[in-house]
Amino acid sequence: METKKLGGQTVQMSQPPVILGHANVVGKKEGEGPLKDTFDYIDADDTFGQPSWEKSESQMQKQALTMAMERAGVSAGQVDFLFAGDLLNQCISSSYAAREQNIPFFGLYGACSTMGESIALASMTLDGGFGQCAAAVASSHFCSAERQYRNPLEYGSQRTPTAQWTVTGAGAVVLGRAGDGPKITHCTIGRIVDKGVCDANNMGAAMAPAAAKTICAHLHDTGRDPDFYDRIITGDLGKLGSELLLELTHREGYDLREVHADCGMLIFDPQEQDVHCGGSGCGCCASVLTGHLLEQMKRGVWKNILFCPTGALHSPTATMQGESIPGICHAVALTNGK
Amino acid sequence: METKKLGGQTVQMSQPPVILGHANVVGKKEGEGPLKDTFDYIDADDTFGQPSWEKSESQMQKQALTMAMERAGVSAGQVDFLFAGDLLNQCISSSYAAREQNIPFFGLYGACSTMGESIALASMTLDGGFGQCAAAVASSHFCSAERQYRNPLEYGSQRTPTAQWTVTGAGAVVLGRAGDGPKITHCTIGRIVDKGVCDANNMGAAMAPAAAKTICAHLHDTGRDPDFYDRIITGDLGKLGSELLLELTHREGYDLREVHADCGMLIFDPQEQDVHCGGSGCGCCASVLTGHLLEQMKRGVWKNILFCPTGALHSPTATMQGESIPGICHAVALTNGK
Repeated sequence: METKKLGGQTVQMSQPPVILGHANVVGKKEGEGPLKDTFDYIDADDTFGQPSWEKSESQMQKQALTMAMERAGVSAGQVDFLFAGDLLNQCISSSYAAREQNIPFFGLYGACSTMGESIALASMTLDGGFGQCAAAVASSHFCSAERQYRNPLEYGSQRTPTAQWTVTGAGAVVLGRAGDGPKITHCTIGRIVDKGVCDANNMGAAMAPAAAKTICAHLHDTGRDPDFYDRIITGDLGKLGSELLLELTHREGYDLREVHADCGMLIFDPQEQDVHCGGSGCGCCASVLTGHLLEQMKRGVWKNILFCPTGALHSPTATMQGESIPGICHAVALTNGK
Repeated sequence: METKKLGGQTVQMSQPPVILGHANVVGKKEGEGPLKDTFDYIDADDTFGQPSWEKSESQMQKQALTMAMERAGVSAGQVDFLFAGDLLNQCISSSYAAREQNIPFFGLYGACSTMGESIALASMTLDGGFGQCAAAVASSHFCSAERQYRNPLEYGSQRTPTAQWTVTGAGAVVLGRAGDGPKITHCTIGRIVDKGVCDANNMGAAMAPAAAKTICAHLHDTGRDPDFYDRIITGDLGKLGSELLLELTHREGYDLREVHADCGMLIFDPQEQDVHCGGSGCGCCASVLTGHLLEQMKRGVWKNILFCPTGALHSPTATMQGESIPGICHAVALTNGK
């Protein structure tokens, strides 16, 4: 029977879905960083006009999706499916954002890999012939994440050197079966990899092995060399995780030094912004993709990129029970439609 | 362009995926209820041999999936994708269960609608041509859910009359593109419906409007009458939610009285087992589908069923912030392959 699967983990689109519109919103700190000119909306105080951080995060998803739909020239009624996720318990940022949109809804949990998972499923759904238009959204908020995963901000906890800073950001893309724009050609779906890292303040080390596995699987399945891509961009490995990724992929015979970048290292200035190992959170790679990365593609600076969001699939409860941190990474190959 | 979408929310499979294998595991209380003969494994003390309730729930998913794969005659290496979800914060039951399975993994969050969401996405992925075999799993555990959503068991809290009892159960199905067994013909993907119910002890009322919307959308999109189906089976509306469903669908011109059943009301004996409005949790409809429902189909008692898991997409944090409870329902149409 016909299959669009290459090798063990990669699927190839028969008619690559097109990014018809994309948008992002971020917080104040992100808006002061090196990518500030690539964000569509920067909130002055990170509340987004809402009375709780959780509601702020929902508002961010709504705002990003609304802008992305406007740019794609589609109304909510024309979007066949919405794929969305976030980091909060029971994924409430996404559910409460989607509540007012009236679009058939798939809730996802992929931790910080969610933007890869949502784009992969949206692409497969469209290429499978189940609709004409689908949206993918992901978000994180520094303040909701801190109080849920670590401590309320009021505690003023100190951070370890390996820690990363959860990005306040949301990104949305609207995909269509036809049109102009960057296209999704392949998706490599991650397997869970757990090398026994138990330090919840060292996510880069926990996720790097999963990123290495997925990127190597993608290159193997497609027969491509790393330099086929102008950039291979991981989600939020940060400084330490990125170093580990280069080492782990080198052992498998791939040299990524020339092409690798990491959204967690791009979004903040590590010297000036005191973020230790870099940015993290679902909203990190979601806002970098829907700003900097897609802009570089649309300008023709890059022709092919591999977007590789990484997630740590643990919880505070699992960590307290002594569990190690399982990592996952989904890779999405984009090509410039022009 | 070709589309497999009917109306606003329903997709139709061009080559209906087949349930090649299915299995379930449940706890002691479920094993004493009216469906006891339809469960594959009943644990004597609900620990499943594990030192924490969260680890018990992971173990349940592993066990159910392993059995379902055995019955389908496939190894983990032959399963192209695993779609799984649960109720716990950051969906750890699923992630830790999937960690050892080495299958490309999509984590989902649909609350108690997860078994519908996972089967829908697995079916669409296969029918879209992206693989030959996919698995869908969901679980819940009374003890992990109580301490996370309500109070630790040790508190001995009293329950309100509208409360439901979270099922300790996991169900797994293995789907293939060809073979013998019940087939998935249509999936109706839910929109979020929120009628302003704020009582987290009255989930039936919060979810019934979403169930009514999805079932009416399904009947409208497919042009079918309710009596096309031998049964239209909701996930876990319970006694009160089921009454509301019948009333809400009646207002839309559909009489479901002859065909409606609810997994939450089937799994426990309401008189003998002191469960107030019935069972709930992702594991409720997952274990009833993979036991009672599929057995009735395979025996030829039923030819067509509509399986409609319902979810409440709130969290304790959202409830404490005064938010109402958004509901969702995904419907999956199954037909007897024989």
